[in-house]
Amino acid sequence: MAAKITYTIQKELGDLSIAPNGWKKQLTYTSWNNREEKFDLRSWNEDHTAMTKGITLTKEEALKLRDILNEIDFDEL
Amino acid sequence: MAAKITYTIQKELGDLSIAPNGWKKQLTYTSWNNREEKFDLRSWNEDHTAMTKGITLTKEEALKLRDILNEIDFDEL
Repeated sequence: MAAKITYTIQKELGDLSIAPNGWKKQLTYTSWNNREEKFDLRSWNEDHTAMTKGITLTKEEALKLRDILNEIDFDEL
Repeated sequence: MAAKITYTIQKELGDLSIAPNGWKKQLTYTSWNNREEKFDLRSWNEDHTAMTKGITLTKEEALKLRDILNEIDFDEL
């Protein structure tokens, strides 16, 4: 039996990309199964009723990711 | 039959966190199945022989994510 997953998207923080089928890769601040909100990176359909697998980040991890991204020389990679 | 997955981590860009069991949540620049490298966010064991599911980002998505993270007021969330 598949467990029922509940989620509440508290805030849509930004869109990374939008696919031709309307799915958006988004950073959101989302609570899964009524747990504390986390930063959440995954793709969603237009009305947020379906999603891909993705990754959740704590605040500390999101801050670290910000710092790492700010240090990357994107022209060099 | 499970398909054989190949990967080459071209660059470890930074660690977001390290779990007590040694697994690191990392941003890497990784080629999956000999395709073009992508930015890749997931956890890896210490010698990079095992990994969790994660998310890959194009350069454009990584730049967008950087900009989104730079605009977040982390104290407000």
